[in-house]
Amino acid sequence: MHIVKPTLVLHPEICRGNIGRMAEKMRKQHVVFRPHFKTHQSRQIGAWFREAGVDKITVSSFGMAQYFAEAGWMDITVAFPVNPLESETINTLAERINLNILAEDPGVIRILDETLRHPVGIFLKIDTGTRRTGIQPEHVDVIDACVEAISRSGHLTWMGFLAHAGHTYRVRSDVAAIDQIYTDALRDLTDLKRRYAGQFPDILISFGDTPGASMAGSFDGIDEMRPGNFVFYDLMQEQIGSCTKDEIAVALVCPVVATHVDRGEIVLYAGGIHLSKDSLTDTDGRVSYGNVFAMDRGWCNLSRKIGVIRSLSQEHGVVRVTNPELHIGAGDLVAVLPVHSCLTAQCMGRYLDTDGERYDHFAGLYPG
Amino acid sequence: MHIVKPTLVLHPEICRGNIGRMAEKMRKQHVVFRPHFKTHQSRQIGAWFREAGVDKITVSSFGMAQYFAEAGWMDITVAFPVNPLESETINTLAERINLNILAEDPGVIRILDETLRHPVGIFLKIDTGTRRTGIQPEHVDVIDACVEAISRSGHLTWMGFLAHAGHTYRVRSDVAAIDQIYTDALRDLTDLKRRYAGQFPDILISFGDTPGASMAGSFDGIDEMRPGNFVFYDLMQEQIGSCTKDEIAVALVCPVVATHVDRGEIVLYAGGIHLSKDSLTDTDGRVSYGNVFAMDRGWCNLSRKIGVIRSLSQEHGVVRVTNPELHIGAGDLVAVLPVHSCLTAQCMGRYLDTDGERYDHFAGLYPG
Repeated sequence: MHIVKPTLVLHPEICRGNIGRMAEKMRKQHVVFRPHFKTHQSRQIGAWFREAGVDKITVSSFGMAQYFAEAGWMDITVAFPVNPLESETINTLAERINLNILAEDPGVIRILDETLRHPVGIFLKIDTGTRRTGIQPEHVDVIDACVEAISRSGHLTWMGFLAHAGHTYRVRSDVAAIDQIYTDALRDLTDLKRRYAGQFPDILISFGDTPGASMAGSFDGIDEMRPGNFVFYDLMQEQIGSCTKDEIAVALVCPVVATHVDRGEIVLYAGGIHLSKDSLTDTDGRVSYGNVFAMDRGWCNLSRKIGVIRSLSQEHGVVRVTNPELHIGAGDLVAVLPVHSCLTAQCMGRYLDTDGERYDHFAGLYPG
Repeated sequence: MHIVKPTLVLHPEICRGNIGRMAEKMRKQHVVFRPHFKTHQSRQIGAWFREAGVDKITVSSFGMAQYFAEAGWMDITVAFPVNPLESETINTLAERINLNILAEDPGVIRILDETLRHPVGIFLKIDTGTRRTGIQPEHVDVIDACVEAISRSGHLTWMGFLAHAGHTYRVRSDVAAIDQIYTDALRDLTDLKRRYAGQFPDILISFGDTPGASMAGSFDGIDEMRPGNFVFYDLMQEQIGSCTKDEIAVALVCPVVATHVDRGEIVLYAGGIHLSKDSLTDTDGRVSYGNVFAMDRGWCNLSRKIGVIRSLSQEHGVVRVTNPELHIGAGDLVAVLPVHSCLTAQCMGRYLDTDGERYDHFAGLYPG
């Protein structure tokens, strides 16, 4: 593996281990596993899911759906409030694959329906506490209006209720709190399902997020789960309690370009254009943009932590060195565990694995 | 202009106005204008600089230097501490163009020199107060050691001192504070230049940053200036006082996908993968990821502000609506002025201008 500039390195064994464990947990819980592919966005990594028995996936844009449809995925949910302006792409996809979309507004459903020419499944997005998108469960008038708009359509089939428990990201190492979020959300979702079950016996509850999928004890009442980040995990998930550092499957390998011994800092050729500007607050109350490790056989040596990235500009990362005995200097390569692996992968646009194999990333092939 | 999903729109007249005004200011001040192209990273926008009389440029990576060398630029400074691992690319470039690099460590200069096969100019990076990279002016022992390493080299020519006044970014609407930063930095830089002028009469002082280049009254003592962001400007520069909103030349045009009237919010199809996660703190103390405007002839209508993006996830932007009378709903397009245009352009990887013309961006052509 010959690396001379910032490179996103993928550890295949760790990644396949994460996929295998999650697939096994879903099987044991009798839940359909529809993983979110927005984290890896790679046809080669997608193939590992197929080997683990997955044939239904989730993505976050119609462009990403096209990329995975070209890679042979025939059942895709685009888990983002449908943008009616993209009806041409929706029709192209729906002609070819089982496509599910997401809506929360009866007006949008009616606008979209006028342009549809092929069958499309539709989930109603429910807000179970994240307060980002979705209908609040008590707004049954809005849900009724959506169901009516779907029922009048010649192309739409109502699939059920979909929710994203994004508020699990606010939890820190507290399995009971995660279980409580799941219990509360599922009470709302199962109440809704029961309300419509007479007329629509096949509707589903689609749920999931990496903290819950990793930590919750039971998925009773959930029909399908859509975690995504677990494929790589990252420092944010480690802080939440979803994983340990040795389950993180991507690292940004990058050169040191300057040392400032007097300030206890080194400067990496690794900035916001490589890692993204996502950060977390460390236990000491200071901001972190990533943990920096010495390398061993092309990967992080977790027992040799160099320090923490404390500031990040376009191409520079300034590291507060916590272990000066390691004598890292300009020209050395180090490995950074990222705060948010989804955005780091998006920034980098491709992967190199620890054996030197290249992997595609959708954003690298179709920018923007 | 047919837009259905997040699209970075460039306003050619505003952009060319920004280029023309800055080129004129540099001419009047008798300073060589070596603009930083890391903001736009586009060969077509580069051509507008050439029309304004520019023939020397700055970039932030050797990959970007290759892209602009292919577009015919023959004099390029890579203003980032040189990464000795990239010597192969450095040789390829130096064979073809006048290449200047940046160093701050005598050890790195010696390592690099062993691999060079073609002439390369080298600046010493001086830290005039930003505390990111660079030699502090009082560390003349380090400067002496660097100058000696350069003098022993058969390929390196010492070009002078280069500094980035990044601490001007901490100023808010205070021309006197900007002028003071320039005065202090130039005292240090001219002292250094004088110290070495006997032996090296041709060394230069290369300085610059967008706040200073836009606001400082005098560039006396500076040989060349390297501002970059001014080509587009952004909300951060507006807050600093470098520009007004009608000088911002890029806007992310994106669809509204959900409305939450009860919370006073709308949700945009525009997230961290489009805008980057860079934010600023508004005058009311709240975080902002962009200002949202109604559209008029393919551009922002600055008199019709819809609200401010208060939170940003991978593909969602949640807008606090300040003007509900505008009745913006799902399926409408809106225009977002970004907080940090360099990173938004990097994320998007290409441009569409207000006449529907496509423009390249280096990151979109060579991901990672």
